[in-house]
Order: sequence, then C-alpha cells, then structure tokens
Amino acid sequence: MKDFIIIGHKAATVPFSLNDLPGAAGRMDILCRCVNAALFLSHDLRRDVRVYLVLKGEPAPPKLICFNGAEVRYLSPDERSAASLIRKALEKNAQDFWTESMPGVSIRKGDFGDLICELNKKIIYLREDGKDIRGKEFGASPDGLLFVLGDHMGLTEDEEKTIEGHGHEIVSVGPLSLHADHCIVLLHNEIDRIEKHI
Amino acid sequence: MKDFIIIGHKAATVPFSLNDLPGAAGRMDILCRCVNAALFLSHDLRRDVRVYLVLKGEPAPPKLICFNGAEVRYLSPDERSAASLIRKALEKNAQDFWTESMPGVSIRKGDFGDLICELNKKIIYLREDGKDIRGKEFGASPDGLLFVLGDHMGLTEDEEKTIEGHGHEIVSVGPLSLHADHCIVLLHNEIDRIEKHI
Repeated sequence: MKDFIIIGHKAATVPFSLNDLPGAAGRMDILCRCVNAALFLSHDLRRDVRVYLVLKGEPAPPKLICFNGAEVRYLSPDERSAASLIRKALEKNAQDFWTESMPGVSIRKGDFGDLICELNKKIIYLREDGKDIRGKEFGASPDGLLFVLGDHMGLTEDEEKTIEGHGHEIVSVGPLSLHADHCIVLLHNEIDRIEKHI
Repeated sequence: MKDFIIIGHKAATVPFSLNDLPGAAGRMDILCRCVNAALFLSHDLRRDVRVYLVLKGEPAPPKLICFNGAEVRYLSPDERSAASLIRKALEKNAQDFWTESMPGVSIRKGDFGDLICELNKKIIYLREDGKDIRGKEFGASPDGLLFVLGDHMGLTEDEEKTIEGHGHEIVSVGPLSLHADHCIVLLHNEIDRIEKHI
C-alpha cells in the first residue's frame, strides 16, 4: 500500500459549496486534484493507494479524510466529484476513530501527527530542496511508502518538526517548483518504472 | 514555444454549465485539467507554453481554443476557472481566424488538421505503445515542440492519418496508461530536466 498525505491548511471542515472550491472551501480544489493524481489511471484506479487529506481550515479543525483506492466507488476524475465525496464525509459527525461515509471514503477527527503515528511508516517528504527521486531505490518494497506533501502554503514549522520526529527523508521531483498533484504524478511514474523494471 | 494540442471528441461547442463539466459539457473536465497541467508551476505560469483545445462535440464543431501562457490572465488552477474561460470564448462568434475572447485566450473555427498545418512543426504524438520519452533528445531545441494528446477516447483513425501526413514520432511516458493531463506533467518534467541539465 502506497500512502499519500496532503495537508490543506485552509481546507473547510464543514460541508461547503461545490461551486467555490478555491474560495469558500479553502483551496479544496488542491486536495481534489491530489485525490485524482494519486488514484486515477486511464481507465482504472490505483487499487494499492490510499490518500489522506488533513483538513485544517475553519470552523472545526483538524479532520482527516481517507480515500482508499481498493474500495472507493462513485469517484470520477473531475474535481467536483472528489469534492462531493469530501463534503459527504464532512456531513458525518466525525469521531476519534474512522467512520466510513461512502464506500472507500472515511473520516475521523485528528491532526497530521496523529495520522503519521497511526500509519507508522518511514516518511518521504516532498520539498523543493530534497534529493532527486530519479534513481532512488525507495526501499526494498515500494508498498511501504508514505509520501507527505503540502498545499499552496507548503508545511508549517510545526509540521516539519513532527516529520523530524519520525524516520524520514526529503526528496524532490525535478528542477522547478510544482503543484502537489503534479508531484504525485511524477512520484507514481517513478515507482511504476521501478515496479515494471523499465 | 512548446505547444500542446488536446482533442476533446465530445467537448461542447457552445457555452455550457460550469456545474456539469464531465456530463453536459462533454468531458470538458479533461481539457480543463490539461490546461492546468500544461500552464501551471507552483506560484507561476509556464510562459513558453501554448495549449490548443480541439472541441469536436455538438452542436457546432469543430472549434479551436488557444491558451497562451505568455499572455493569459484570470486563470486559476481549478477546473472551473479554465472552464469559465473556455465558456467565455464559446460566447464569441467564432470566425475562420483567431479572435481573442479574454487576455491570452482565443477561439476560431477549425479542425485538428487545420491547426497542425497552421503550427507547422514536427508532431510528437503521445500513445501507449510509443517510444519511452526518457533519454530522448527532443531535437536541438525543446522550443520547437508540438505534442498531441487524445482525451478519454484516444485519437480516431482519421486523426492518426492526419498525423501520419506530417513529420511525427510516437512517444509514451511510462509503463501504464494515464490520463492526458498526467502525461503532460511527465512531458514537462522531462523537458525541464533537459533544459536545466539535471
């Protein structure tokens, strides 16, 4: 299982309008594109991927939402489709444990630190000044991978400290600074090539 | 200037609702994501890129729309933002020549064949069975590049014949079949690495 965590510092934590994802929903569009990039193949889903969204916007932060590629249904590639599933999850009364809101989509109360303790894997943190992913081995098995990406605001100092408290490395995907969803596409491609030996 | 052509076989050719891009607008969501992937850097735009959309859906096909990275304004990364600029272009009475509808966004009547004659560059056609882009030289200068990608339906036999009538090569971005916007991200990364010598 490959896990991706994306932190949405302004992402709404109550149901929001699907017609203003960048504004009123707190750059929810970024998170929706990350769901797409992490889960979609051309006419299929990546079943071995889970995407975790950390919603830190008002009025009820922090909340965690999980899309599990092995189980998710009713998800189309467009931003509005992912947003609609996130909104449905936010309609649930989030608890301290995971509750499924739709097949393959779950929500709980919790912050970034709770999540990385729960997943308990070595963290691969995407940052512009990190080591180039090309030629990396990604450990013995790519299945144990946990990638962490920020939204348009990057990660806060506190979030970086949380990462530093765990086994981690810092990597980058190329010479230019890119959106989180574009980074996910590049990470997948690198791992696809390793897995298919090309 | 790097040019990308994406063919939308069902994409609406009159103004459409922004609330149903995949359905009533004929998978316009695919084209919007391609605009994003081709033009956006993290906090900047790729000024040396033009994106051409070929709209072949009802009721008034074919139409061509161009986003010019050097001039475009009022474009945000979300699908709805690109869709809104496409819709504005479709409000224009399209002619046989380019008309600007908003800064950096233009429209004309015309089909795929007209466009590749107008651009008059060697075509790089993305197809799953193409040659791997890694290690390719992309000619002496990446500036002369013209990439052609299909939507969820790929390219028709006729469109492939049009390509075959011009200088072209067929390339692929990796071992799995991916969405057009994901392919654009991978193409950009390859060229970025060549341009930055890493």
